[in-house]
Amino acid sequence: MTQQSTCPRPPAEPAAAAPGAPDHVRMGVGARFTLHPAADDFIPVILGALEAARAAAPEVTVRTDDVSTLLRGSEEQIGRFLLAAVDRAAELTPSGHVVATLALSRGCPGEVGCTLPTGELAHVAPVSLAATGRRAAAHWALYPLGTEDAMGPIEQAIAAAQAAGTWSGPENFATRLDGDLGEVLSTLLDTWTVVGRSVAHVAAHATVSLGSPTATPTSGPAVTRAGEPR
Amino acid sequence: MTQQSTCPRPPAEPAAAAPGAPDHVRMGVGARFTLHPAADDFIPVILGALEAARAAAPEVTVRTDDVSTLLRGSEEQIGRFLLAAVDRAAELTPSGHVVATLALSRGCPGEVGCTLPTGELAHVAPVSLAATGRRAAAHWALYPLGTEDAMGPIEQAIAAAQAAGTWSGPENFATRLDGDLGEVLSTLLDTWTVVGRSVAHVAAHATVSLGSPTATPTSGPAVTRAGEPR
Repeated sequence: MTQQSTCPRPPAEPAAAAPGAPDHVRMGVGARFTLHPAADDFIPVILGALEAARAAAPEVTVRTDDVSTLLRGSEEQIGRFLLAAVDRAAELTPSGHVVATLALSRGCPGEVGCTLPTGELAHVAPVSLAATGRRAAAHWALYPLGTEDAMGPIEQAIAAAQAAGTWSGPENFATRLDGDLGEVLSTLLDTWTVVGRSVAHVAAHATVSLGSPTATPTSGPAVTRAGEPR
Repeated sequence: MTQQSTCPRPPAEPAAAAPGAPDHVRMGVGARFTLHPAADDFIPVILGALEAARAAAPEVTVRTDDVSTLLRGSEEQIGRFLLAAVDRAAELTPSGHVVATLALSRGCPGEVGCTLPTGELAHVAPVSLAATGRRAAAHWALYPLGTEDAMGPIEQAIAAAQAAGTWSGPENFATRLDGDLGEVLSTLLDTWTVVGRSVAHVAAHATVSLGSPTATPTSGPAVTRAGEPR
């Protein structure tokens, strides 16, 4: 078994790493997400959400299977797709409770034939996502890969989330974010691209929850601890 | 901002890294998961699933908030908890469609005051999870942290999944697993502990789907490609 044989290779994009390709293609940028509407009749919610997202971000390449949806495009376009999808799903779900599971990836492995991006890493501008009026809470983890110093970039990402105002504190195995859906998604995307300036391969995972009947964390010391030194 | 100030510290477990502590405590082992029953009336499904899981794995420490549920315990106990929770959730969900979002973590950061485990890394025996008769499909990603060679351990994990018979092929940004729910969860846990023998900090994420109306992947080259050299 060679490394190449088990790494995903996108045969539909043979020019993925060609010279002159857009940064997001050269850097192997993409996302996977799954919408979880708390609804008996979940199919129209998911289809309606994907339709709204395609309209909002028509440049994104979308492939849905039975587990998740693959998105390929620029960070800005992926952000707009996700924002529209989750916003519409919340609108369409009678119970009002929707969760989105999100994985962002840039660099190798995962794309571009598992070859790390060559040349300078891209400096990506922050995304510009509108406020939705919907509150979202997320458990977020960011993984800088292929580097002995994982904590330095993680600290950089946490500082960026604190500056953005969405950081709500450390959890066990995750960091909590709170804010408008647009702010939370912006934090997820922008911290990932900021770390991507110095680390080629960066993955970020988040569980983004809207409309949970458990409005705020109430139990145990594992949740946000007010008064903890920041 | 110091590293310590932003890292999760479990104040309820002050003796976490004490000499003589069980391996799973010394290694900072734990999990976060979220159940997503496709149901208007989702609360009794989640509560019923957690109740069944607590009965199946009473040694696991459980803390639920509005985004996810934290599990602390041995790998075997965490596996039994997850198996019972997802199995009961599928039983209780009228639509039959349930997704579980799962994050496994061992090592630093995330626990034990962000200090990497000292001494030899634990060799954990494979978990022993019963078959449920329920088919599950997962998108799985494993992240060895703090090491320049991320691909070597990832290849090791993929080989272990292939040996277990649950490996269904590479996806973009993930690996697909298929099998009985018990087999899929066993693969997720056992690959994570196998890599944990050589890498202190290992995270694994999976979206585990049961009863999707999209029975098998049908579109595009991004899904399992039959005939691809392994």
